[in-house]
Amino acid sequence: MTSIEIVEVGARDGLQNEPDILPTATKLQMINFAIAAGVRRIETASFVNPRRVPQMADAEDVMAGLPDTDAVTYIGLVLNERGAERALATKVHELGAVAVASDSFAMRNQGQTSAESVEVAKRIVDMAKAAGRSGQITISAAFGCPFDGEVDPDHVVAMAAALAEANPREIALADTIGVAVPSQVKALIGRVRAAIGTIPIRAHFHNTRNTGLANAWAALEAGAATLDSSLGGLGGCPFAPKATGNIPTEDLLYLLHRSGVATGIDLDAMIGTGQWLSNVMGRPLPAMLSRAGNFPPSPAHSGAGA
Amino acid sequence: MTSIEIVEVGARDGLQNEPDILPTATKLQMINFAIAAGVRRIETASFVNPRRVPQMADAEDVMAGLPDTDAVTYIGLVLNERGAERALATKVHELGAVAVASDSFAMRNQGQTSAESVEVAKRIVDMAKAAGRSGQITISAAFGCPFDGEVDPDHVVAMAAALAEANPREIALADTIGVAVPSQVKALIGRVRAAIGTIPIRAHFHNTRNTGLANAWAALEAGAATLDSSLGGLGGCPFAPKATGNIPTEDLLYLLHRSGVATGIDLDAMIGTGQWLSNVMGRPLPAMLSRAGNFPPSPAHSGAGA
Repeated sequence: MTSIEIVEVGARDGLQNEPDILPTATKLQMINFAIAAGVRRIETASFVNPRRVPQMADAEDVMAGLPDTDAVTYIGLVLNERGAERALATKVHELGAVAVASDSFAMRNQGQTSAESVEVAKRIVDMAKAAGRSGQITISAAFGCPFDGEVDPDHVVAMAAALAEANPREIALADTIGVAVPSQVKALIGRVRAAIGTIPIRAHFHNTRNTGLANAWAALEAGAATLDSSLGGLGGCPFAPKATGNIPTEDLLYLLHRSGVATGIDLDAMIGTGQWLSNVMGRPLPAMLSRAGNFPPSPAHSGAGA
Repeated sequence: MTSIEIVEVGARDGLQNEPDILPTATKLQMINFAIAAGVRRIETASFVNPRRVPQMADAEDVMAGLPDTDAVTYIGLVLNERGAERALATKVHELGAVAVASDSFAMRNQGQTSAESVEVAKRIVDMAKAAGRSGQITISAAFGCPFDGEVDPDHVVAMAAALAEANPREIALADTIGVAVPSQVKALIGRVRAAIGTIPIRAHFHNTRNTGLANAWAALEAGAATLDSSLGGLGGCPFAPKATGNIPTEDLLYLLHRSGVATGIDLDAMIGTGQWLSNVMGRPLPAMLSRAGNFPPSPAHSGAGA
């Protein structure tokens, strides 16, 4: 693997669990900085119930404020047909649907059983296609559930096969609560790969137990085409207890680039953006590159280092 | 790989960079807790100049206070013959010598060139054997130097081959400043493996850039027999700018155990010990398992979780 695609999820998964609601203008700055750094696929908003996720209440305003371009793919997360309709009334290029691997988490996250979430996700992909957009599906809690504990990989593979019938742009496996380990990632991606034909696989990890970057590397080795990450390592799910940050984009880029895997994204620019975001949030963020610095230090940025 | 050996380095590498000097009795508690949790190989102290590393000034007292046992291997770090003599006057089972892969870091860390550090390390192994103890050697800054930048892997391989002439118990590759990535780890361990015959390989990682656990897993896959880690993720080197914590023992155990790799160490006991250490240090430590909890939650410990 000499290159991999990154989906920046900081403006959606990163922010949705924050107690303080960021102004729309700040979200737009964050997204525009990411685009300027070379990110070409971005979760820009989620079209969910604003009473349940108030941080995403300005989804339409965020979309309206973004540059008109087809050079970047804007992804809107939706959990049901109502959300899909809202998203399709904006300039999102892509709907991101969510099928949940456990009933307990599906019910808390989106008021559906696991089986219902599969059917809804397929209909969302159909809606996206009918509107001339693309649609993809994330299998959430694929490596473990905060309420039910272990999730049977057979169930995840069967879900992926069922979801493939809708022919989504991609199917993602998400470790929503950060419990996965590399061997598990390799095994599950291998099985899903065999079950869904040529549909690309995306992987989504949280660093709750310090295994996030190891899992990302394992996913790449297992053939994932795309990895999600979040600027600064912001993140967490409002409906998953103790869920913490996504893997930090800066740290992931460091690992990939130093391994000779290209992403098209400027790491130094993302480190600067992460430091800006840390100032905005008023606290240090989990990303470690912004503290440790690149290695070897980039000539243009080595002034402050050792 | 169905099992791997862990060397707990918290009482040495973990503490040596701390501004507040821990009382000897607290260090002894820390080591005894680790032994009670199942750790069987421990860096207990370093026998270095107390003016340069005041945290290790009580090395002899720590050794004298430890239980008399051959069921646990106590390792004393030494950088020269004087340190080896001091260590051999105690009940250490094993001397840990350090050869440094770059001249600049060798000079700052131990006042030797890289080539001199190889010769000294070999003599330390000879001294250990002559005293009926074992001796092993760590190649420090093997993946990058804080002063010279990139380190030539050819040089590291040549050093390992030269060190192997002393027939140490093992040779370790250390990412002293936390710059390594998994592909680099696999490549370098593979080359060193081919250069040193049947001498076992240990690997030592810092999590400075969030790649530490990914590197540990890569080292295991590449055939390392032993991994270093530090309770709570304490750590840092007094002579390496911006060096931060070792990989946390708790988080490493989680990754290994969930992958079916046995260590003989009780993770829940180590989580408890890490929480005790966090109280002792008066701040949260980098280890994430002590905040996130085991998964699935252990029956005896699930009361407080979700």
